[in-house]
Amino acid sequence: MPTRRTDLAMEAFENTDGGGIPGARVSRWESGGIEITEVVIAEAEASRMLGKPKGNYLTLESPLLRERDPDIRLAIAALLAEEIARMLPDPSPEAPNAPVLVVGLGNRAITPDSLGPAVVDRTLATRHMLGRIGPTQMRSVCAIAPGVLGITGIESLELVEAVSRAVGPRAILCVDSLAARDAMRIGSTIQLTDTGIQPGAGVGNHRRALTEESVGAPVVSVGMPTVVYAATLARDAFAWLARQNGEEDPPGEALADMERSLLRADIGEMIVTPREIDAIVQDASGIIASGINRALQPSLSDAEIAAMMN
Amino acid sequence: MPTRRTDLAMEAFENTDGGGIPGARVSRWESGGIEITEVVIAEAEASRMLGKPKGNYLTLESPLLRERDPDIRLAIAALLAEEIARMLPDPSPEAPNAPVLVVGLGNRAITPDSLGPAVVDRTLATRHMLGRIGPTQMRSVCAIAPGVLGITGIESLELVEAVSRAVGPRAILCVDSLAARDAMRIGSTIQLTDTGIQPGAGVGNHRRALTEESVGAPVVSVGMPTVVYAATLARDAFAWLARQNGEEDPPGEALADMERSLLRADIGEMIVTPREIDAIVQDASGIIASGINRALQPSLSDAEIAAMMN
Amino acid sequence: MPTRRTDLAMEAFENTDGGGIPGARVSRWESGGIEITEVVIAEAEASRMLGKPKGNYLTLESPLLRERDPDIRLAIAALLAEEIARMLPDPSPEAPNAPVLVVGLGNRAITPDSLGPAVVDRTLATRHMLGRIGPTQMRSVCAIAPGVLGITGIESLELVEAVSRAVGPRAILCVDSLAARDAMRIGSTIQLTDTGIQPGAGVGNHRRALTEESVGAPVVSVGMPTVVYAATLARDAFAWLARQNGEEDPPGEALADMERSLLRADIGEMIVTPREIDAIVQDASGIIASGINRALQPSLSDAEIAAMMN
Amino acid sequence: MPTRRTDLAMEAFENTDGGGIPGARVSRWESGGIEITEVVIAEAEASRMLGKPKGNYLTLESPLLRERDPDIRLAIAALLAEEIARMLPDPSPEAPNAPVLVVGLGNRAITPDSLGPAVVDRTLATRHMLGRIGPTQMRSVCAIAPGVLGITGIESLELVEAVSRAVGPRAILCVDSLAARDAMRIGSTIQLTDTGIQPGAGVGNHRRALTEESVGAPVVSVGMPTVVYAATLARDAFAWLARQNGEEDPPGEALADMERSLLRADIGEMIVTPREIDAIVQDASGIIASGINRALQPSLSDAEIAAMMN
Repeated sequence: MPTRRTDLAMEAFENTDGGGIPGARVSRWESGGIEITEVVIAEAEASRMLGKPKGNYLTLESPLLRERDPDIRLAIAALLAEEIARMLPDPSPEAPNAPVLVVGLGNRAITPDSLGPAVVDRTLATRHMLGRIGPTQMRSVCAIAPGVLGITGIESLELVEAVSRAVGPRAILCVDSLAARDAMRIGSTIQLTDTGIQPGAGVGNHRRALTEESVGAPVVSVGMPTVVYAATLARDAFAWLARQNGEEDPPGEALADMERSLLRADIGEMIVTPREIDAIVQDASGIIASGINRALQPSLSDAEIAAMMN
Repeated sequence: MPTRRTDLAMEAFENTDGGGIPGARVSRWESGGIEITEVVIAEAEASRMLGKPKGNYLTLESPLLRERDPDIRLAIAALLAEEIARMLPDPSPEAPNAPVLVVGLGNRAITPDSLGPAVVDRTLATRHMLGRIGPTQMRSVCAIAPGVLGITGIESLELVEAVSRAVGPRAILCVDSLAARDAMRIGSTIQLTDTGIQPGAGVGNHRRALTEESVGAPVVSVGMPTVVYAATLARDAFAWLARQNGEEDPPGEALADMERSLLRADIGEMIVTPREIDAIVQDASGIIASGINRALQPSLSDAEIAAMMN
Repeated sequence: MPTRRTDLAMEAFENTDGGGIPGARVSRWESGGIEITEVVIAEAEASRMLGKPKGNYLTLESPLLRERDPDIRLAIAALLAEEIARMLPDPSPEAPNAPVLVVGLGNRAITPDSLGPAVVDRTLATRHMLGRIGPTQMRSVCAIAPGVLGITGIESLELVEAVSRAVGPRAILCVDSLAARDAMRIGSTIQLTDTGIQPGAGVGNHRRALTEESVGAPVVSVGMPTVVYAATLARDAFAWLARQNGEEDPPGEALADMERSLLRADIGEMIVTPREIDAIVQDASGIIASGINRALQPSLSDAEIAAMMN
Repeated sequence: MPTRRTDLAMEAFENTDGGGIPGARVSRWESGGIEITEVVIAEAEASRMLGKPKGNYLTLESPLLRERDPDIRLAIAALLAEEIARMLPDPSPEAPNAPVLVVGLGNRAITPDSLGPAVVDRTLATRHMLGRIGPTQMRSVCAIAPGVLGITGIESLELVEAVSRAVGPRAILCVDSLAARDAMRIGSTIQLTDTGIQPGAGVGNHRRALTEESVGAPVVSVGMPTVVYAATLARDAFAWLARQNGEEDPPGEALADMERSLLRADIGEMIVTPREIDAIVQDASGIIASGINRALQPSLSDAEIAAMMN
């Protein structure tokens, strides 16, 4: 299981052959050309079997996203805005100005890991101007891209904790690049979860957790697959071939041999990604930022948000 | 005085016609082709008159610096390393691994404000690898460029305070782009102080202070002028002309008229800078980073530092 | 005259106190909030007196441009598209697919010199896809930013000549950063000319000419001031002061003294620019590219152009 | 064969099981820790069988290269300098100042395709200063990175031809990112050839050829693998598995099925690359540029080259 590495809960579920896992539930529906899958992992045993923490996972998926279809982009941004707003707690009367802290995880210098910083670049941060300029119904937002070159010696999530202590957020909204199992999901799928960030997740392989327990505020995450691990790809190709040969699955020792061989060749940790990944990340960052800006500023129009972005 | 804006204590002193200010002291000497000026501001009254906080200011100056003379570069880096080491407290037995936190102030996207981030890029950060890899006599250093984090909604110095609380530094070493009064000092002068950062200082005009009082650790600053404010230049040209006309100083109302005129034309906040400022900043960042790396790692050779930088 | 350096013909005219110069003509009118000035230099003597080559110069000016007023941006882009289309020759029946070669002069690494490359980034180039994809009524356009880091040892205009020989353009459309005399024109004025590029013009100070004579195709130029030379600013401040003192103009030897002093201090070649110049250039590049794309693709809608840009 | 895509002649040879191919010859030796392989393809039939043009191919290989071993870096740079010098023609008495045109192929915005532009950034270009400044024994060099010029509508090699006509080079030295078959060669192998660039070669998949026939000057190429194509990896994993099953090779229809499946999933054109590819490219560009600078300036010391680089 660990080498069939995926950050998408829907794919973890697929690994189990879709069958009934007690304590987990999958629903699928379609809306405006977008395929939506909801995975709810309710029990610890299901969490263990799927290798994913308990919580809710929502994926929005459309092959047209990767083709930059303008209608599907608008539809995804609108749906994302709705779902983010639903997952986030409302401002509380005691701390009406507690900001939402948007965190763009990942490293800008590594393209398939740069989705988070790219989204932060396009997020409307308002915390520094509240009460000074801008519409009065504006809500407090601050944004940080902790892994951007310029910090060294401090882990990204350690920095997020430090900033969180300083600004006392109402919620944290993380954006991260993900690894998928199926290469077709690169650039075509967005996942939204309320489970926080786990060690080892994301393309950047975070070493710490970032959860409500660790930071004292709900943590919602948005991600998009940008890579498949080479080991995953090889293993799947392998299994596929075995099935062609009439076997149910490749024999265990063959798989073990192959993995040793991949590791020896340093391929295991290599990533598989489309050549046009730069354009895919730029495009997706616009859609995700649009969804975030709408969700965080329910009283502002798109035009008002755009005007304040510069 | 405020429009004769300079971040160099030696220039603030020049404004007073060099005469004796009670509670302040200037010394000048020369070493290996480098002109060194030390300003000590000991009394509150002198601090008020000079518009600079109490403390020690050391400037290293050579016109050859701007011409990229290789010998003077090595000499400046060596002298800077010595003086930084002298200003920083030694590691204490109680917290032998408390890091020095290097802070590169400024905005990478604005060339004359990008010295700090450029130096951080070349600073050897070790905190994350202490005890794991590297020579055992390595000291703990972390580095942060808060204005290039893709951070918005959080002021740079607010972030530095948050990080400082998280890592408990033995000292903070800030690097910043400065404004000079005399354009000849752009790229040719490095100032080292133990006074912390004051509101309004630097090319980026920090809105908060960063001092031992605010962060609980000594704050040492290194800076180099990259700009002259247009208002400063115009005012000085003005005064110069008045002197040519045999007047001691331009009449007050003429100066006031000129400033109104400059502000109306939006010139007051404009910056004057050499066209080759990109190259000047790149070059200076290498020298300053070399001085910092040597000062912070007294047991490592230049070659060891270079080998660990990648 | 040479130190009152300006690339704007309208400012060269102002230097002459607006009076009648035989062989030159200035007209001014207003349209939709945009102030338009047309300078026609018809005679060699007028060209010599104004320090500008013979030809037509059109400036579009609005202080709202710098404030990023969305309405004025649209109005300027529309007017610019019209005027560029009027200056360019139509496709000829003999060479219906001869491209327009858009040339973004300047150096991307020097912000006030980066307008040209920024416009090229947003120009719709079609030459490589004609007949393969896209609407059939699409016209051939190619675009080049010759001074972008990546070329050394070859002058920008030498490269433009080489490319011009290779692609046989119907016309060349240059975009360049300009120097103004009046700082208020930075970011608020766009100049359009049919005179080609002259040695010494632009912020990058081209060493060669680029004219119909040198490349065999009409050369139209679009530019926006991004800097004032420090020497120009000082000289104007000087003259202004002299007038305050009731003198017609500062005495010649005082001016000469001042210039010697500025040169000694290396200030002469320094530039004066707003701190927000990065944002000004980004913003203006969007407006200018929009005007260019519309002018070069008269049969495509804005939406079609936008869809093909990615 | 075409899907077992490799730009390394030594790997094309491996595909043939190393056996004797008439008209081709492989030699291997070791020097200072570097494994050197020379492939000479002398006959058209061998060229067809190996899918590589006739000519000489030299690969320098060391696993230590990827680990950034400082000694091996120096050794590789020295060896590369020697071999480049040997492949290039000497300056001729008739055109003593004909430059070597260094061409950095590839796109800076796509990391695994950015080796060429990165090397050009570090190449000492001298053509514009010959006779004006610098040591008199300096040779003429110009450098161009055609894919980062902000050029659109003009193919890279079309631009190289245009520049070549303009500067009349003594030789062209291309640098490009390559695709390998074996992932272990990414970042550890440098190939030097005298065959020019072929259509379809390189990570950027050039559409034209660049050869002595097309440009009238010898074309020498230096490249380093930065990717393996996903289809190559899958196919090799496949063959490996077949061998595990005791088959000589996977059955043809199974391979065909797999390829159809990969193409359907858009995986065929995907690239496999290490996550640290940014650092690998930066590092290799320094080594290759050092080799080039030494080869092109045989009378300058390393220190003189470094001093002139800024």
